[in-house]
Amino acid sequence: MSLPNMLQITPLLSAYRTGTLTPTNMVHDVIARIDSYTTQDPAVWISRVPAEKLLARAAELEKQAATDLPLYGIPFAVKDNIDVAGLPTTAGCPAFAYEPQESAEVVRRLEAAGAILIGKTNLDQFATGLVGMRSPYGQPHCVFNPEYVSGGSSSGSAVAVAAGLVSFALGTDTAGSGRVPAAFNNIVGLKPSRGVLSTYGLVPACESLDCISVFAGSTADAWEVEQIAAAPDARSPYSRALDVRPLPLTTFRFGVLKKEDQFFDGNAANAALYARAIHLLEQIGGTPVELDFAPLKETAALLYSGPFVVERLAAIKDFYNTHRQDMDPTVGAIIDGAKNYTATDVFEGIYRQHSLQQVAQRMWADFDIMLLPTAPRIVTKQEVMEQPIAANSLLGAYTNFVNLLDMAACAVPAGFAPDGLPFGVTFIAPAFTDKDLAVLAGRFHHALGEAVGLTRTDKPVSKEADTTAPNNRVLLAVVGAHLKGFPLHWQLEQEHAVLRNTTRTAPDYRLFALPNATPPKPGLVREQGFEGNGLEVEVYELDAAGFGRFVASVPQPMSIGRITLEDGKEVCGFLCSEAVARSGTDITETGGWRYYMQTR
Amino acid sequence: MSLPNMLQITPLLSAYRTGTLTPTNMVHDVIARIDSYTTQDPAVWISRVPAEKLLARAAELEKQAATDLPLYGIPFAVKDNIDVAGLPTTAGCPAFAYEPQESAEVVRRLEAAGAILIGKTNLDQFATGLVGMRSPYGQPHCVFNPEYVSGGSSSGSAVAVAAGLVSFALGTDTAGSGRVPAAFNNIVGLKPSRGVLSTYGLVPACESLDCISVFAGSTADAWEVEQIAAAPDARSPYSRALDVRPLPLTTFRFGVLKKEDQFFDGNAANAALYARAIHLLEQIGGTPVELDFAPLKETAALLYSGPFVVERLAAIKDFYNTHRQDMDPTVGAIIDGAKNYTATDVFEGIYRQHSLQQVAQRMWADFDIMLLPTAPRIVTKQEVMEQPIAANSLLGAYTNFVNLLDMAACAVPAGFAPDGLPFGVTFIAPAFTDKDLAVLAGRFHHALGEAVGLTRTDKPVSKEADTTAPNNRVLLAVVGAHLKGFPLHWQLEQEHAVLRNTTRTAPDYRLFALPNATPPKPGLVREQGFEGNGLEVEVYELDAAGFGRFVASVPQPMSIGRITLEDGKEVCGFLCSEAVARSGTDITETGGWRYYMQTR
Repeated sequence: MSLPNMLQITPLLSAYRTGTLTPTNMVHDVIARIDSYTTQDPAVWISRVPAEKLLARAAELEKQAATDLPLYGIPFAVKDNIDVAGLPTTAGCPAFAYEPQESAEVVRRLEAAGAILIGKTNLDQFATGLVGMRSPYGQPHCVFNPEYVSGGSSSGSAVAVAAGLVSFALGTDTAGSGRVPAAFNNIVGLKPSRGVLSTYGLVPACESLDCISVFAGSTADAWEVEQIAAAPDARSPYSRALDVRPLPLTTFRFGVLKKEDQFFDGNAANAALYARAIHLLEQIGGTPVELDFAPLKETAALLYSGPFVVERLAAIKDFYNTHRQDMDPTVGAIIDGAKNYTATDVFEGIYRQHSLQQVAQRMWADFDIMLLPTAPRIVTKQEVMEQPIAANSLLGAYTNFVNLLDMAACAVPAGFAPDGLPFGVTFIAPAFTDKDLAVLAGRFHHALGEAVGLTRTDKPVSKEADTTAPNNRVLLAVVGAHLKGFPLHWQLEQEHAVLRNTTRTAPDYRLFALPNATPPKPGLVREQGFEGNGLEVEVYELDAAGFGRFVASVPQPMSIGRITLEDGKEVCGFLCSEAVARSGTDITETGGWRYYMQTR
Repeated sequence: MSLPNMLQITPLLSAYRTGTLTPTNMVHDVIARIDSYTTQDPAVWISRVPAEKLLARAAELEKQAATDLPLYGIPFAVKDNIDVAGLPTTAGCPAFAYEPQESAEVVRRLEAAGAILIGKTNLDQFATGLVGMRSPYGQPHCVFNPEYVSGGSSSGSAVAVAAGLVSFALGTDTAGSGRVPAAFNNIVGLKPSRGVLSTYGLVPACESLDCISVFAGSTADAWEVEQIAAAPDARSPYSRALDVRPLPLTTFRFGVLKKEDQFFDGNAANAALYARAIHLLEQIGGTPVELDFAPLKETAALLYSGPFVVERLAAIKDFYNTHRQDMDPTVGAIIDGAKNYTATDVFEGIYRQHSLQQVAQRMWADFDIMLLPTAPRIVTKQEVMEQPIAANSLLGAYTNFVNLLDMAACAVPAGFAPDGLPFGVTFIAPAFTDKDLAVLAGRFHHALGEAVGLTRTDKPVSKEADTTAPNNRVLLAVVGAHLKGFPLHWQLEQEHAVLRNTTRTAPDYRLFALPNATPPKPGLVREQGFEGNGLEVEVYELDAAGFGRFVASVPQPMSIGRITLEDGKEVCGFLCSEAVARSGTDITETGGWRYYMQTR
């Protein structure tokens, strides 16, 4: 088959599995595509893996016949501040370049999963910028209009995905570098929780904040990549295990900007697209809640107008002291600013960061996620040349605070303005919600109905239809006093259980009204061979700890075990001592506790 | 009744409840005791609540008749770097003193629980020191010998508890200030996990590391106080909720110093006491494992010989800039050292701290807790006068790293040397293990058999006999394939379940060998009215999340509900579909699965 315009993971994998495509074919096609796109934009790549090595890698995969590898034959790109053995790491600065001995841990993990590395992409030097203009390797442009910036600092990575040159690309994101270029090129940018992806092998920008991020055509692909790349790594000082936190997915509250905080720098089309995005999220279960932007804005200011700029100097101190003149003038000037801060300023900035974290922590009582514009508007290359700092600052208005406040973020497309330029929104939630944040952002992206990337021909792939609860999450079917509106429902609310669906049990269950139960309760019993109509259950999702506390509070004669639903799937659910249940009244025929109680 | 020598909480509360003591009597007696002890050591207090106010507070409590308050009428002291409305806060520096408008959050919580604040205690100025000698308010001495230091910086707080002047006292602990003086005065010093006790109303020493700590006569009292004082507080930048993590309590591994790392500065008696402590902990279920002290030592050096000293300047910058000459000369000289560090030094120190945290994190794979000397040896006041920095540094050899590595610690007495001076050990474990750390340290303290405090007449009160699992922890009784040595036991190990005890069910349970189960399994069924001998079960403790994951994996026809043990208590446990169970063989008479399987 010929490659799809967007190289999303699922269609490639299924083409490999059905044999209509091989990694070797893919490599040939991708090389041709890259060569072709280079005539339009020569600034995407800093270095590439030579064709013969790509073909050897493809052949190696084919020989292993390891088509069950989750990223078998999937082409990807890596931002050139992340080490790849065999290619130089430049960080966008030729004088800084070095030849790494080994690949970054995340690259190693992705390759071990079968992915094929195509090359290293351009960036704002030392990942300092949101424009993609601060590189001696050229300035990639927005895939939709060469007058406009690609966004940065992960400029080449975003363009490579949007132009269909790779399936996904690694970026980095300290201030928004993994989100802004996603918005400007109609793709997804997933910024994981801090520390979840090892930074071993990354040239730091702000080491306490840096995240390696993922660009892809869909949230499903981005999460798939994150999941494979994530692992605790003792060589990465800020490494943390991804201790998955759930978000409510069916009905939820989302923070939005108040009208007076909505800043699009005069771009009315983007204001309308943000309003439409809010409306769309309402349609898929969200209730908007106005948020207080002031503490987020204050946090954002710490990043460049505060002592965190010192981290950028600490990252390259020796190089800076000897090669200041070899740096991009704007980047050099920003890092010069680090010299204005004293040691006490640094601690005071960190204390302020922690105080603001406490304020932000309380915001989550009012809503589950935030929905913000990714950037107020896209800017032209000309604007950046005229005002290199101001045009850049504009782009970070809604991204800078996220890492300082230890949040996860997922940037998704949100439509096009009449001038043909894209607009994006970012879903933001507390650390460790990465998975569900991707799910919610993906539902939005899907509901938007827009195709992705440069060609706008391919819809984002969706994989989140599966209702199985992953990792640390449990599905629990309730059948009686815990149903919505019934007396013990608060016990589920207390554990932040989220209603996933209402369904029925398999036909071989009976329901009994228990004698002398306070509050009134039924008991569910499975009876091999019985053929009833099933009983109505509500299926809730809880995290494992909440589920554990819930189970521990279940009194005799109830218990929690697996029950089989009408579709044959098993979830956890309420059971009852059969002896006790059968001493009550058989109410199986009513179809469920809710109906029985209504007719009583 | 006359007051006990040590004012432990339990005897006071029971005297109040039986009416043999009133808060008013207590106040009179405590005032007399303080006056008497002041003739021996006039340097314990910086300010005291006037007698008439203490009596008014006592009368107020008596009027409320609120004897169910957990700290009803319990006298306590507060280190004078913690705000108490109505008394000045000096931080051990008269020129710095101010009159706080409100009390620190922890003080407010303790008073709300019924505790009676007696006064503010002496400290090394700005909590900078481990000796108790750096204060213009005098130098408290070790309760056992006036030639020796009390330890610091929480000098007055430790002496006040050890001399029986109060039931407990708040200290602070950045480098060891809540542990070293506990060791030198034969009492308990519990250093909570960072952020668990609000620092709102505390004069910072190193704001990113400071912990408010608790001195008491027993670990049970110290934990009781911590539990009451702990609460998330958005006004405290580093505040965190205490998300309880369990430790194994029955059998566990503990890290100990290798012989070559054992440094007691020539004190052979303390070396012998440390060896005895290791032996004692072995007797109560521990297996010693040699630890690698090098990374801990490197971490410790960051605190004073590294950029964290800059925090001490940041804490009092304005005062330092205008009143340097009003400071204790040693403290002033230490803080002068902050000026040697640049802004980049600070970030580099923080990165190193995080790298060392990753190293330390891996240590916990080898053991569950560490058992270290609290200090190598006690020093004389004369030694400190001659070498104010070196004698102080000696005392922090085993304490300085703890907060930098985000650990909890509990210092307990470990006996006396032939010269009559006490030695102490510290139990150390990862953040959020505070509760179980206090339990383990308490078992050690109890096993030691020594009475506490100055008079050495009162044994430490023990309250940890209760086997109920608190908060986030669940007890689970297993009856079949999950028993130790059986095929599914690994599922418990995977969730770090800890065996609490082996016991039997209530008599009305029957056990059946299930037909066709792989691996072989029994099913437990309760049968009202049946009078058997009970079935043997092993009771494990898990945290709620581990329990939740475990329950979610339990296949049909098993379920988890409450089962009643032979002592009438209920724990969670395995149940089975009665229909399925009764299709198997009744093996109730064997007394349990283990016996049935042995005879098969």
